Amino acid sequence: MRAFIVVSHTAPLEGGFSLSDLPGGAGRLDILCRCTTEAFLLSHGIRKDVRLYLAIRDRLVVELEGRRLRHLNPDERSTAALLRRALTRAQGLSPGESAESTPGIRVRWEGLRELLVRISGEGFQPLVLDEEGQFVRKAPLPAWPAFVLSDHKDFTPAERESLVLYPKISLGPLSLHGHQCITLVHNELDLREAKWVGSP
Amino acid sequence: MRAFIVVSHTAPLEGGFSLSDLPGGAGRLDILCRCTTEAFLLSHGIRKDVRLYLAIRDRLVVELEGRRLRHLNPDERSTAALLRRALTRAQGLSPGESAESTPGIRVRWEGLRELLVRISGEGFQPLVLDEEGQFVRKAPLPAWPAFVLSDHKDFTPAERESLVLYPKISLGPLSLHGHQCITLVHNELDLREAKWVGSP
Repeated sequence: MRAFIVVSHTAPLEGGFSLSDLPGGAGRLDILCRCTTEAFLLSHGIRKDVRLYLAIRDRLVVELEGRRLRHLNPDERSTAALLRRALTRAQGLSPGESAESTPGIRVRWEGLRELLVRISGEGFQPLVLDEEGQFVRKAPLPAWPAFVLSDHKDFTPAERESLVLYPKISLGPLSLHGHQCITLVHNELDLREAKWVGSP
Repeated sequence: MRAFIVVSHTAPLEGGFSLSDLPGGAGRLDILCRCTTEAFLLSHGIRKDVRLYLAIRDRLVVELEGRRLRHLNPDERSTAALLRRALTRAQGLSPGESAESTPGIRVRWEGLRELLVRISGEGFQPLVLDEEGQFVRKAPLPAWPAFVLSDHKDFTPAERESLVLYPKISLGPLSLHGHQCITLVHNELDLREAKWVGSP
């Protein structure tokens, strides 16, 4: 099992926005859409053994589970519509409650630190994607890694404090978009799982 | 210099479509948008030394040049608007003519085979992304590679014939979307150019 935690500082906490202005009125929801695409979509199907946690403003978590996920298409706009349903579904939930908005997408009011504790309890081992980290191709990786990455803004000091104990992993010499990092991590894990050395 | 040639079998040859239905009415233009994003965008800026050729229906080529490219944002919809301007600009051009629709985006009526001849004359060496190819991490790569990939459909027999002489490169054990392949190729080239072995 693999997980990704995308920390969003600007995405909305409710669903009242237009699908035609994701980078503006929807608080860069386009970033979370691309991360969702990269976390789950293969050329012919969905990665089943993946979980994606969109941790929005340290208050709300949208959790996507590959095994149960339905209706996910590659284009940004349709993914935004799914996330909008989740954000709408979150309204009225009490702390501790969670609800499924569409198959495989669940929301709950939860901060980053609580999320890290919860998934660690399920067996995930968090790692932080960081340009100063150990190069992924040489790094030992756990069986159930949970890669934490930020949106277009840096982690806040409070977030850094929540993450300080976890190993840091880097992907290369250039600073990339979060969704690109997800693609690269998946490829590294795919190669390791298949013990890939090239074409047979 | 690096180039990517994305062969599209379904994208429109003119600009009369809605930006709100890219996967449907716009003939999977969303695929070309994502390829454009991955070809050029870094976290903080544009890759200057990249060219992207969108070879549509073996008739029209939209050519994007990193060094001159302007107005490219990460979201699909705004990229689609740029490509729509290019497709609109193509109308009325004679064979052999080309025109710039916005800075760094140029269109011309040209088939895949003519495109391959033209860029080979400029110094590019085409390689084909193919699951049966040599694993990219072990493959020798030219200084000016031009990676050819297809959209959601396989290459046609005629396209395969145009590509038969070029080396084939694979990226891993799973079948990925074209835009994901571009991200992986860039990373491999970034690592080689920087002689990257991990954090300093």
